[in-house]
Amino acid sequence: MNKEKEFINIINKILNKDLKKDFVVGIGDDAAILTSNGNNKMVICSDTIVEDIHFKLDYFSFEDIGWKSIAINSSDLAAMGAVPNYFTVSIGLPSHINKNNFEQLIIGMKKCCDSYGGFIVGGDIVKSDKLFISISAVGSLHQKKFLTRDSAKPGDKVAVTGNLGDSLGGLNLLLDNKKGGRLINSHLKPQPKIIESKKLIESGVKCCMDISDGLHNDLLNLCESSKVSIEINIEDLPVSKELKSEFSDRFIDIAINGGEDYELLFTFDESKIKLPFNYFVIGSVVNKNENNVLYKNKGKIIKPKLNTWSHFEQN
Amino acid sequence: MNKEKEFINIINKILNKDLKKDFVVGIGDDAAILTSNGNNKMVICSDTIVEDIHFKLDYFSFEDIGWKSIAINSSDLAAMGAVPNYFTVSIGLPSHINKNNFEQLIIGMKKCCDSYGGFIVGGDIVKSDKLFISISAVGSLHQKKFLTRDSAKPGDKVAVTGNLGDSLGGLNLLLDNKKGGRLINSHLKPQPKIIESKKLIESGVKCCMDISDGLHNDLLNLCESSKVSIEINIEDLPVSKELKSEFSDRFIDIAINGGEDYELLFTFDESKIKLPFNYFVIGSVVNKNENNVLYKNKGKIIKPKLNTWSHFEQN
Repeated sequence: MNKEKEFINIINKILNKDLKKDFVVGIGDDAAILTSNGNNKMVICSDTIVEDIHFKLDYFSFEDIGWKSIAINSSDLAAMGAVPNYFTVSIGLPSHINKNNFEQLIIGMKKCCDSYGGFIVGGDIVKSDKLFISISAVGSLHQKKFLTRDSAKPGDKVAVTGNLGDSLGGLNLLLDNKKGGRLINSHLKPQPKIIESKKLIESGVKCCMDISDGLHNDLLNLCESSKVSIEINIEDLPVSKELKSEFSDRFIDIAINGGEDYELLFTFDESKIKLPFNYFVIGSVVNKNENNVLYKNKGKIIKPKLNTWSHFEQN
Repeated sequence: MNKEKEFINIINKILNKDLKKDFVVGIGDDAAILTSNGNNKMVICSDTIVEDIHFKLDYFSFEDIGWKSIAINSSDLAAMGAVPNYFTVSIGLPSHINKNNFEQLIIGMKKCCDSYGGFIVGGDIVKSDKLFISISAVGSLHQKKFLTRDSAKPGDKVAVTGNLGDSLGGLNLLLDNKKGGRLINSHLKPQPKIIESKKLIESGVKCCMDISDGLHNDLLNLCESSKVSIEINIEDLPVSKELKSEFSDRFIDIAINGGEDYELLFTFDESKIKLPFNYFVIGSVVNKNENNVLYKNKGKIIKPKLNTWSHFEQN
């Protein structure tokens, strides 16, 4: 078990006594769903980015940092089938950040709100050695239905909303001092899948999460929550031509292990549900061998290079 | 203007276009009030504490840090007349913090929730060089009434719920390697004034804020928001016998400038409103000289030593 999960277990052990009837979905999913005011369900999540852990000022503009801080929270809401309503923003500011930097940071946040919904309603600014942005998002559900990571059923297809690995590919290019292009843009400016989330809900899909820790890690998270195993056909993984061309020897490893894709990972019964957008079926839910992810290449079991990478375990 | 206010002005400039009909109270008060779901008003705020800026691990136990992180957010809600419902908790964890430290941190948060209301419903853990805890709180109003800092009226009495300066006194003792006692406990374990807040609302009081930046700074904030001036009678400031005895030469300066009191500061028409708890009238709202705080000692104007202390400007 990694250190982050051990800490989350401590939280659950101490706080689980609190789980009451007004929790529809509690700690452990992308966001919590609460039955505030009777039938109107409120969805709450929070996500933080820290300088030199999640981004470096060498290659991130302040506007991109602001955008990404909101986008990753909107992605957590999309993972639950919710739309963003309100954000609170806590900013830890080092003394070297000037007014112009700060203005660009807030402009980036505002642009993401304007693109994907929600308003910044409050927050606080504190002094800090490193820049950090901690955001809490409050969202609401379409038609009172929601998506969770614990509802995958054997026989379901496993699918994703878009290309995998572009963000990690982009990070590798940035660390190599390259600039511009689709991969780098994927890393700097992720697009939360708010529209696809709405269509999943409307189509009757139940099981979904966003891919923030990399496909493999998030498949493991989904298997653990749903108590299933998953088989992935690696020839079906959607990979951009840019990732293939930049990393021709290892694009599959990057697609499997790459973090911060912010695509949606979902499962559904393809014989019953028709989805009104382009998606990519990458495998199936099976019930043998609980909590296991098996990779196949043209029907043959393979063992890809797995990197249980996590921001939390680095350095 | 201090740097924190300049940054808040940047936020307001960029985000104010967003202020829509669903904001009852927007950015700039202790918390935002939103008309989610029609009549049911939701109150949201966030507050962050950072190691070596707001606390040091030398003299804070992890349980006290956890308690304080929740308490200061509950105090922001109390300042608006709201009670805590839900908290999200983002924790920046340095690698030296072990499982036992972390468990104590969460126990402290849980104890404060158990004492003053609300449940922790989610959050995230990220790696960080320094420990930080960023909390967002969602609360609800009693009887749909609320308190703001912009509603002080000339003729109102200015009052506080309890002793001033104990927390800064306690911090000074801690920095001097002392342990235990009322002053130190005030600094380590502030008690949010949830009960007094409810009684203020029930009694018809409109103008309130919590004292987090010190009496003088928060009087200036209240004057600025309400566009009034205030006269304070320093002989009426409530000061504990412990503060007087430990700091006999400067307890008034500490009471005026000390941060993190987390008492409520409120104004009201004493001829019309009777309050069902012990409070301390410390002065009056006047309308001459906008945004000014005047101090008197037995009727004579005095100029106390003013320290426009702020966590943000330190170091």
